[in-house]
Amino acid sequence: MHELLDRCVSQLRLARLIEALSRFGAREDGGVDRQAMGEADIAAREFLVDRAAALGCTAMLDESGNLFLRRAGVAASAAAAPARPAPSSSIDAVAPPLTGLAPAVATGSHVDSQPAGGRLDGAWGICAGLEAIAALNEAGIVTRDPIEVIVWANEEGCRFAPGSLGAQAFVEPARLPALLDARDRDGVRYGDCVAALHRRMPLPPRAPGSGLKLFIEAHIEQGPVLEQREVPIGIVSGVQGVRWLRIAAQGQAAHAGTTPLAFRRDAMRACVELMQRLYGHAEQVPQLRLTVGSIDVAPGSINTVPGDAAFTLDLRHADAAQLDACERLVGEYCSSSRHGCRMTVERLMALPTTRFDAGLQQSLRASASELGLPTLDMLSGAFHDALHVARLCPTAMLFVPSRDGLSHNPAEHTDIELLHAGTRVLAQTLLRLAGTA
Amino acid sequence: MHELLDRCVSQLRLARLIEALSRFGAREDGGVDRQAMGEADIAAREFLVDRAAALGCTAMLDESGNLFLRRAGVAASAAAAPARPAPSSSIDAVAPPLTGLAPAVATGSHVDSQPAGGRLDGAWGICAGLEAIAALNEAGIVTRDPIEVIVWANEEGCRFAPGSLGAQAFVEPARLPALLDARDRDGVRYGDCVAALHRRMPLPPRAPGSGLKLFIEAHIEQGPVLEQREVPIGIVSGVQGVRWLRIAAQGQAAHAGTTPLAFRRDAMRACVELMQRLYGHAEQVPQLRLTVGSIDVAPGSINTVPGDAAFTLDLRHADAAQLDACERLVGEYCSSSRHGCRMTVERLMALPTTRFDAGLQQSLRASASELGLPTLDMLSGAFHDALHVARLCPTAMLFVPSRDGLSHNPAEHTDIELLHAGTRVLAQTLLRLAGTA
Repeated sequence: MHELLDRCVSQLRLARLIEALSRFGAREDGGVDRQAMGEADIAAREFLVDRAAALGCTAMLDESGNLFLRRAGVAASAAAAPARPAPSSSIDAVAPPLTGLAPAVATGSHVDSQPAGGRLDGAWGICAGLEAIAALNEAGIVTRDPIEVIVWANEEGCRFAPGSLGAQAFVEPARLPALLDARDRDGVRYGDCVAALHRRMPLPPRAPGSGLKLFIEAHIEQGPVLEQREVPIGIVSGVQGVRWLRIAAQGQAAHAGTTPLAFRRDAMRACVELMQRLYGHAEQVPQLRLTVGSIDVAPGSINTVPGDAAFTLDLRHADAAQLDACERLVGEYCSSSRHGCRMTVERLMALPTTRFDAGLQQSLRASASELGLPTLDMLSGAFHDALHVARLCPTAMLFVPSRDGLSHNPAEHTDIELLHAGTRVLAQTLLRLAGTA
Repeated sequence: MHELLDRCVSQLRLARLIEALSRFGAREDGGVDRQAMGEADIAAREFLVDRAAALGCTAMLDESGNLFLRRAGVAASAAAAPARPAPSSSIDAVAPPLTGLAPAVATGSHVDSQPAGGRLDGAWGICAGLEAIAALNEAGIVTRDPIEVIVWANEEGCRFAPGSLGAQAFVEPARLPALLDARDRDGVRYGDCVAALHRRMPLPPRAPGSGLKLFIEAHIEQGPVLEQREVPIGIVSGVQGVRWLRIAAQGQAAHAGTTPLAFRRDAMRACVELMQRLYGHAEQVPQLRLTVGSIDVAPGSINTVPGDAAFTLDLRHADAAQLDACERLVGEYCSSSRHGCRMTVERLMALPTTRFDAGLQQSLRASASELGLPTLDMLSGAFHDALHVARLCPTAMLFVPSRDGLSHNPAEHTDIELLHAGTRVLAQTLLRLAGTA
């Protein structure tokens, strides 16, 4: 442990930065509404560029809107990003991105939010990274490798789909044109927002996939496990596999008063029976997370037997075999007519379990241990930018507890002492990995 | 049986009248969209007044928009409605309704429809009544009592709530002011529509509750029972009791990926468990009709555990004790926390079983028997105007089969031979009850 660095990680400065960032898109209820590429999101980025500049960092912006705030290292000082601005006329006229950037020890997360989001989801990871840099500065430490705080674009996915659009485009540039074509509900094109962002923030460009040695994302847990176990630091071993299904029953609408049960083809009933079986199955499988989050029923009238019903199923488990078993149960139920209804299953998404880099997990664990902070190895149930970055370079994640497990909610909260603890672990780990000059 | 009258009930004339009426609000798919007090509904009434006049009938209109088409009887000829028109300037200026009307042997139903309705729901009952009058005329029969065909207003309730507004106002005039205040989705007031109707159709007024000796409604079954049993005529003994409940679960929204099952307060799960119990219970209770027709889930996102869910329950049975038992099952489930959710039950409506007049049922049965038509005694599962009129005077209903049990659907259909059979039973019964001069 670097004791001087640890003493320089300031709880007060961290709290003030979180507070300052939360003013962008602030809601009256204490939460934030900072949807991707909206004015609050862009203003928050401008604020972060200024804050990083004050810490001696340079900024870069890539073609999908990711923002990179870089503290130079010794090994990289010759290749650090210059102050040359990108042309402001058009995204197409941007100068070729710089190559040969020294690979950075990177951290970061996102600052976009849900419409009724909290002030910590994503934002804390950005603030923790900048506080780590501030502490390194205060301690007078020069690192071998550059250190970077990355503000990934459009993580939430609530305005433009998919979520983690920026991280996905950075990792897989072949998908960039399709991703830039994403549109919000009003028909606004994501690529046009990025072009406007470049005109407003004329920063040097960054080539996709370039300049990263490794990535560590600090994030609130967004679940109840750390709080329940009273452990301050989660070492995230990976992200559990996910399957999204849509299950539909097609029967026949009928009058609720005139149609005896034996004559019905009740789509609601066919769906409810399957749901009940699934809930029962989930009780038998440890760690399985099974959610029926939405259901559509037509015609949806109190006195009409539903002719159509369809519900979504979100399945998560670290073991693909358990997800397979659950899908088999659904498939078996839907393979024959149920209560006179034709059943169909559509798989909307399937993501395998991601395992984070074991060495980076060990580095995080070692830092926490040296600081006397207990840790818990855990899987992430939520998606994060790190899930995608893991395909590009060694990646890991660090969690701090979420009060009541709440997130995507203005009431989202983590005590500042815990946010400070997580930031201390992050700072030590970044230094450990970036090395001293 | 009056053989001459029976020979005069014309299948062809009936078919042409049904066809002519179906042109008002005709949909391209063969159904009708003739919502209450819309142009198609009003034009259909004008057509019926003309048709009735051609048959020698006089017309009256009451304060809630019910239309009365009267064929004079001997006993009533002195008091038959005069041709004096109502003032056309304002509903408020309508002359006092005539009193002392001879009580009519009445039949009828409604001509308003669902937005995607069929051409027979309600309309057949009106056409059958007018065809009975045409047959009486052709047979040269003068009855002792007047015979009336009543076009009840706003039966469907899809534009203005409640359904059977006109019949309810006629039976219970104290409710008239409140009922006239009903508004559609665009804020249009029902009472204003009635006032406009009076200006357009300046007919003599009719006092609420006046001039009825008895009422027999002919209607399609709107269910599958007669078709399945291959019986042409249903003698309706009453309308089964109904309870409408709204059951809500309040838990807490949570992230589907980060929240282990044990920590969840899943409102969807709490509702599904109860629904499954209810479906199981319904299997054990003969004749119970139990429908979950609609459900609302919030926030309704594929990857969020629902924090709120609420569903409607429609329960019908002839025996109130069975409805009570079902409500007890719901109450018991909702009396404690389920899956961490607070459960609440709201009773939206409760209607007791209505029993129709035994003598009138016997008259219908006797007419069918004389015509060699098999009958089935049955309860109505649906609501009808007759349900309300039964509080005012002896009332009964006659059903004919519905193909596939379909109704409230453009595909609603009954073979003309069956519609003709039902009309023959109605004509004989009206004559039997009105008596010959």
